[in-house]
Amino acid sequence: MNSAALYRNITLGVADAPFVKATISRYGWRVGVGRFVAGQDAATAVPALLKIQASGRGIILDLLGEFVGTEAAARGTARAIEESVRVAHAAGVEPYLSVKPTQLGLGVSSELAWELAEHVVGVVGSLGGHVCLDMENVPYVDRTLDLYERLRRAGHHHVSTVLQSYLHRTPDDLARMLALASEFSSITGLRLVKGAYREAPTDAIQDVSRVADAYRDLAYQALAGGLKLNIGTHDEGLLRELIAYAKGAKLGPEHHEVQMLFGVRPQLQERLSGQGVPVRVYVPFGADWYGYFSRRLAERPANLAFVVRGLFG
Amino acid sequence: MNSAALYRNITLGVADAPFVKATISRYGWRVGVGRFVAGQDAATAVPALLKIQASGRGIILDLLGEFVGTEAAARGTARAIEESVRVAHAAGVEPYLSVKPTQLGLGVSSELAWELAEHVVGVVGSLGGHVCLDMENVPYVDRTLDLYERLRRAGHHHVSTVLQSYLHRTPDDLARMLALASEFSSITGLRLVKGAYREAPTDAIQDVSRVADAYRDLAYQALAGGLKLNIGTHDEGLLRELIAYAKGAKLGPEHHEVQMLFGVRPQLQERLSGQGVPVRVYVPFGADWYGYFSRRLAERPANLAFVVRGLFG
Repeated sequence: MNSAALYRNITLGVADAPFVKATISRYGWRVGVGRFVAGQDAATAVPALLKIQASGRGIILDLLGEFVGTEAAARGTARAIEESVRVAHAAGVEPYLSVKPTQLGLGVSSELAWELAEHVVGVVGSLGGHVCLDMENVPYVDRTLDLYERLRRAGHHHVSTVLQSYLHRTPDDLARMLALASEFSSITGLRLVKGAYREAPTDAIQDVSRVADAYRDLAYQALAGGLKLNIGTHDEGLLRELIAYAKGAKLGPEHHEVQMLFGVRPQLQERLSGQGVPVRVYVPFGADWYGYFSRRLAERPANLAFVVRGLFG
Repeated sequence: MNSAALYRNITLGVADAPFVKATISRYGWRVGVGRFVAGQDAATAVPALLKIQASGRGIILDLLGEFVGTEAAARGTARAIEESVRVAHAAGVEPYLSVKPTQLGLGVSSELAWELAEHVVGVVGSLGGHVCLDMENVPYVDRTLDLYERLRRAGHHHVSTVLQSYLHRTPDDLARMLALASEFSSITGLRLVKGAYREAPTDAIQDVSRVADAYRDLAYQALAGGLKLNIGTHDEGLLRELIAYAKGAKLGPEHHEVQMLFGVRPQLQERLSGQGVPVRVYVPFGADWYGYFSRRLAERPANLAFVVRGLFG
C-alpha cells in the first residue's frame, strides 16, 4: 500500500471512531465542514450557491445521503430532494440536480426507483432544470444504466448519467450510451469520472496511471461521438488535455464542461472559468454530511490539517 | 532566487572552474556525456542516430558549437556541418539538420551568414533533407528571422525556424511568420520553445508559469494558422495539451510533432511515440560538447548525480 492509500485508510478509520464522530459532528461547522458542504439544508446552502453562480460557474445540487434500505425511507428522500430543488429554485438557483439512484430506492427495487426517479425528473423538468443520475458501486451500474435508458425512452431528455473510467466494463457501457444517444436528436450528456469506490481487481483497474489513460481514451470517444462530456475530475493535467482537445475540435459549452466538487481546488475552478472554460460545481448540502466530509479529509492531508487547526487553533 | 535557479547558477559556476573542466573533459565519456551527446563526431554518433530512427522517432542533427567570431571560423564550421550531414546520410540517417546562425557567421556579418546558410541549405536540399535555423538570444532574433525569410523567398521551402515564448516580442514575430507562410503553398514549420537564455525583464517574461501560458497561446495560434508546429518542450503537461488539441483538430504529423533533446525524458519520448505521437529527437554531437553538457547538468540535480556516480562510483 502506498503512503497516500495508508493515509486514506487511517483517516477513514479514525473518522469512524465514535468519539471523533461525536466531536466533529458537534463542532463541525466551526472546524470547516462549510468548506466542503454548503449548508445543513437547501435554504442555508443558498448563499454559497448564488455566490458560485455569480462567479460564472454553474452548480449541481446534491442533497447528501446515500443508500436507503426501505421504501418509506426512499419516499422520504425523494420528497426531501424535491423540496430542496424547489427551495433553491425559488431563491434563484438553477435547478440542476444530481441524485444517487440508491437514494431513490434502487437498493429496494428497480420499480420503486423508477417511480421516484420519474417523479423527481418530472418536477425538475417542470422547472426547466436537469437531473444527473449519479453512478455508484458495481452492483448498481447495470440497474442505473437501465433506469437512465428507461427515462430517456420515456421522453425525459433533461437527464444524464455518469460512467467510471476505472471499471473494466466501461468501454461497453460507453458503446451502449453512444448507441442510445444516436437515437435522439437532443445532445446526450455524460459525466466521466475516474471512480472512487473500492472495487475488486476483477472489476476495476487498480493502477492510477492506467485509470487516467482509460479516462482519456473514453473521453475522446465520447467527444468524437457527439456527446456532451462532463469532465468530472480534479486531475489538472487530464482535464487540461480534454479542454485542449475540445478547443482543437471547436467544441463549445454544449459539448463539454468541467465539473468539480465544492471546495476542492477552488482557485483552479476560478482560473479555468476565467479562461472561458465552462465549469460547474457539484455542491453538497444536508444534515447527512459526515461521511462525505470524512472522505474529503481522507483525500488530502492538507484538508485534515485545516480541521485540526479549526479544533485547536 | 528560487532553489532551482540557485542550483543552476552554482552548477554552471562550478562547471566553469578549470579543474572541473579538465577532469570532466578527460573522463567525459566515462561519466555519462554519452547520455546527452551522441558522439565526438557524426561517424561515432551514427549508432545512436540509427537506434532512434529504428524506434520510430525522427532525428535532428546538431553539430555542437555556438558563436563563431571570424569569417574563417564560420567557413570552417559550415564545412564541418556539411561533412557531418553527408557522413550521417551515407550511413542511413535522415538529413534533418539544426544549425545556429551564429555558427555560420551571423555574428560576423549578415552577408556571410547568408552565403554559408544558402550553401548548407542547398546541400541538405540536394539530399532531400530539412534545415531548421535555430534561434539564439535577443541580439540575433531579427537577423535570424531576416535570414529565414530570405531563404524562403529564394525558394528554399525545406527550411524552418524557431520562436521563443518567453520573449515579449514573439507574438509580433509569429504574426510575421503567419503572414509569410500564407504566401507559399508548402506547409511552414515552426519550432516553439519556452526559451533558455538569460534575458532581461524588458525582453522576456520571467515568471515560468506565464511563459507556459504564452507558449500555449502562441501554439494555438500557430496551429490555427496552418503552420506545422514543432513542439519543443519537455513540459509534459503542456505538450500533452497541444497533442490533445491537435487530436481534436484532426491535425496529422504534417501539422505537429514533438521535439525533445537526446537523453532528456527518454521514456516519455518512447511512450509518446508508442501512442502514435510524431516525435523527433534533437541529437547533439561533436568535440565541442562541454558547454552543452554542463547546461544539461545544471537543469536537473539528478543529471549531476549521474555524473558524480560515474566519477566516484
